[in-house]
Amino acid sequence: MPQDIYEKVMVLAKRRGFIYPSFEIYGGVAGFYDYGPLGIQLKNNLENLWRHFYLLKDKCIEINTPTVTLFDVLKASGHVDEFTDLTVDCQKCKRSYKVEDIIESDISVEQAIKQDNIKCPSCGKKLTDAHPVNLMFSTTIGIGDGRKAFLRPETAQGIFINFHLLYRYYREKLPFGVIQIGKGYRNEISPRQGTLRQREFSMAEAEVFFDPKDKTHPNYNKIKDKELYLYDNKNEFKLSVEDAISKKTINNQALAYYMYLTQDFLLSAGVDPKKFRFRKHASDELAHYAMECWDAELYSERFGWVECVGIADRSAYDLSSHIKSTNTDMYAQRKYDEPRIEKIKKIVPKMNILGPLYKDKAGVVKKLLEDINIEETKKVTIELDGKSVDIPDDCYKIVESKEKTTGEKFVPHVIEPSYGIDRILYFLLEHNYSEGKKKDEDYRILKLNSKMAPIKTGIFPLINDKKLVDIAQKIDQNLRDAEIFTYYDDSGTIGRRYARMDEVGTPFCITVDHDTLNNDTVTIRSRDTTKQERIKITDIVSYLMKYI
Amino acid sequence: MPQDIYEKVMVLAKRRGFIYPSFEIYGGVAGFYDYGPLGIQLKNNLENLWRHFYLLKDKCIEINTPTVTLFDVLKASGHVDEFTDLTVDCQKCKRSYKVEDIIESDISVEQAIKQDNIKCPSCGKKLTDAHPVNLMFSTTIGIGDGRKAFLRPETAQGIFINFHLLYRYYREKLPFGVIQIGKGYRNEISPRQGTLRQREFSMAEAEVFFDPKDKTHPNYNKIKDKELYLYDNKNEFKLSVEDAISKKTINNQALAYYMYLTQDFLLSAGVDPKKFRFRKHASDELAHYAMECWDAELYSERFGWVECVGIADRSAYDLSSHIKSTNTDMYAQRKYDEPRIEKIKKIVPKMNILGPLYKDKAGVVKKLLEDINIEETKKVTIELDGKSVDIPDDCYKIVESKEKTTGEKFVPHVIEPSYGIDRILYFLLEHNYSEGKKKDEDYRILKLNSKMAPIKTGIFPLINDKKLVDIAQKIDQNLRDAEIFTYYDDSGTIGRRYARMDEVGTPFCITVDHDTLNNDTVTIRSRDTTKQERIKITDIVSYLMKYI
Repeated sequence: MPQDIYEKVMVLAKRRGFIYPSFEIYGGVAGFYDYGPLGIQLKNNLENLWRHFYLLKDKCIEINTPTVTLFDVLKASGHVDEFTDLTVDCQKCKRSYKVEDIIESDISVEQAIKQDNIKCPSCGKKLTDAHPVNLMFSTTIGIGDGRKAFLRPETAQGIFINFHLLYRYYREKLPFGVIQIGKGYRNEISPRQGTLRQREFSMAEAEVFFDPKDKTHPNYNKIKDKELYLYDNKNEFKLSVEDAISKKTINNQALAYYMYLTQDFLLSAGVDPKKFRFRKHASDELAHYAMECWDAELYSERFGWVECVGIADRSAYDLSSHIKSTNTDMYAQRKYDEPRIEKIKKIVPKMNILGPLYKDKAGVVKKLLEDINIEETKKVTIELDGKSVDIPDDCYKIVESKEKTTGEKFVPHVIEPSYGIDRILYFLLEHNYSEGKKKDEDYRILKLNSKMAPIKTGIFPLINDKKLVDIAQKIDQNLRDAEIFTYYDDSGTIGRRYARMDEVGTPFCITVDHDTLNNDTVTIRSRDTTKQERIKITDIVSYLMKYI
Repeated sequence: MPQDIYEKVMVLAKRRGFIYPSFEIYGGVAGFYDYGPLGIQLKNNLENLWRHFYLLKDKCIEINTPTVTLFDVLKASGHVDEFTDLTVDCQKCKRSYKVEDIIESDISVEQAIKQDNIKCPSCGKKLTDAHPVNLMFSTTIGIGDGRKAFLRPETAQGIFINFHLLYRYYREKLPFGVIQIGKGYRNEISPRQGTLRQREFSMAEAEVFFDPKDKTHPNYNKIKDKELYLYDNKNEFKLSVEDAISKKTINNQALAYYMYLTQDFLLSAGVDPKKFRFRKHASDELAHYAMECWDAELYSERFGWVECVGIADRSAYDLSSHIKSTNTDMYAQRKYDEPRIEKIKKIVPKMNILGPLYKDKAGVVKKLLEDINIEETKKVTIELDGKSVDIPDDCYKIVESKEKTTGEKFVPHVIEPSYGIDRILYFLLEHNYSEGKKKDEDYRILKLNSKMAPIKTGIFPLINDKKLVDIAQKIDQNLRDAEIFTYYDDSGTIGRRYARMDEVGTPFCITVDHDTLNNDTVTIRSRDTTKQERIKITDIVSYLMKYI
């Protein structure tokens, strides 16, 4: 059976040190992969490019928060209740499956369960009782009962729960964006799809905070005429950013801006433009926190279209949840052009009545009463010990006063571009893989672009002569001092050495030969043109810097 | 009470966005910290400098493996049994303590327990029954019983279990080094010491594999005359690398080489040389895997000398353990100069006798018999179903033959420099913090060196005039395009803006003023000299590049 593209890429990836299955000598575990020496270099390059787009171009700020996350945080964010997969367990063979993985592709999960025709792929028994299973890895902080915690399913929550500090860092101006790059975890029921469905993965997320009344972006004018590659679940089409907004294909500038930034990033990294598109989520597939969501999808010859980036309008969902759970002031302020004198209605609790009535709870009741916005509601009802309690009229008075206000507070909205780094990395390999024959031998080339290539240049002495070797090693050290990753190779024919470098995507190869001894020049060979040029040793760094 | 240095540094760190306590709005949890915008930038700079030392200078290769680690791996490595703290639980108030934290500093744990005088710091009850508690966070992969796993206590094991693949990547030559940067976890009983004792931390580790008969390093000659700052638990003294080896203060070249590399790295990063030393582990404090270990210690005015890097000779401990547990070929080969003809004695199992005797186990027995090295042992005993079984003489014959061998195999030794990134980062803040008064106001300066500084330059228009603002913003964008981190600031007096930048360690500030409009020059002010120079706008990038 001929190998398909995924197998070919993964065989190369393992043989040459891009990706290894984890824990292989202990039998391996589905959903875990290691990056080998070339893989991590590619990943570092990809993440640095991403930082360039988000930190330097878009002027976001970066933070870094723990992967171990308190139960309370993920309860508030909805993940304890909603981050689940519908699962069936086989009573006979004791295996568990994610329902989505085992139903026919043309019916919905609901239909399959209704029709009662889900069968165990392993033993054939009919499966029933589909139930949601939470997908977070759980653990405990401290010993004994300790404190319940999870490995984070996304980096986003670490940003949200620091919003008030970050807003202060940004001198209380909106919009501003905060990024985080790090590990995310999803304890898949039974992961298939190889490196595309990992239980521990690398994410790069940006949470950009906007005034909900002003979802414009300061750089919008620079990109409004650019074309987006869109797919509406029926047709693929191209539309300028501006047209997509005016036709309401995309809801707002902020969302459209980050879609374009994403497209620009992916194409700069070396994704094939013909295998790229944005697909809009149907309303029934939106995550529990999302108002609108677009996926950047990449096309695989094995897996079809695969989501690699999700760009969601999370609205005020997360900040509101954390405000509700902790009562922290995580509001932003919309400043008026001029201070206004406003009539304010406020509840003023009467402690002489509250005191005897609520005893040791009186302080809490007072605080809760003061928090009620009586402008917006007529109800004087509080949540006490998990119960809704109506407060009698004589416990408070409503006072009207005039106050000078300089602005009004609100909960910011969030636009979130969330990138699956490992998936993008796999697609860089698949989209740039090509193969053929050279002198009857299999020949593989990875056409990674120069910015992404793990090794920037090979360095070869033509023969193993001490004079040539010394010069080659000196060039090697000079390039490394200039932060350029090299691969020194003195074994085999030059053709064989070129082939080794082509296979791992190295864009250039430098050969030190006998002419070098006479005129201080070397040949530099390009992977893509296979042409050689002679250049001076002193020009090598600047030559390479043009490309990387 | 005046704040001590730790409090001062941490107040600044939180106020300006270096370090935040994690989950603060949910009450916080000891041992978890976030990096804010400036903290993560400093951390990225520190890790990139570390990569420069290990990847580019020392030519190690990098890999990246999961934080979630199979039980079997950590059982084999000894962590399931040995990665523990001696702990006491108070029967009265139900609190738990690490024994080391609560005994008098001048007696040993053993003494304290013997003398039965450990008291609960909270309620005063006498504590007994000290017992070891494992410090790994545990979790489960998959649902139901799943597979038991831990969050890794070190990144090293991910490297060891891939040794055979990495040895092949390195074309089967020793020595070679493999690095990993990432999260490590230690579920402390009751962490104190703030950011110096975190439950989730960032590590940078190198595992360098050597032939045990040849612990020399190719770059040794370049550094043998350099001085090391040493401490033998009695005296501090300086010694050249070469002398330290000849006097047997340090056991071998490899260990001494990585000690010097560590010293060079820490001083380059901006650690105070007067607050730095290497301390040798006494034999009773060595980790379960270590043969010899030196700690790079940094001095804190609050905490005293603190271990920040451990440089251990792990010998063949880890690879041998994994070979034993998995039977994987993780040997290296020492090639003979010329092939040798050697007499080889081998066990040849007789299947006609083994078959009836061991039935379905016969295949296993055959394999185990063949694995016995009869040159080294006379015992023909195998481990079967956990029991030691003697194999009768008639089940095999011993055959002598002559074979051509090109080398002999062995288990490589490992030298491991292991860096606690968060601790080093804290010390960069403490060692570079200074304060005083300026015009009767408190004035703080962080003298981070230019390579480490999170922001490389402030950019200020002198006044809020559109012409000046436009130029300043353009300079800002140009520097960002050149990957230089800037901070644009147009509010407050210039003095106030300098002060803001000094406090976070920014080495330069650029001001656009009215002269800029006439001659395309700006002032550039140095944090450390407070002197200003006028330079051309077109020279800014090259000016800054000299320092960063």
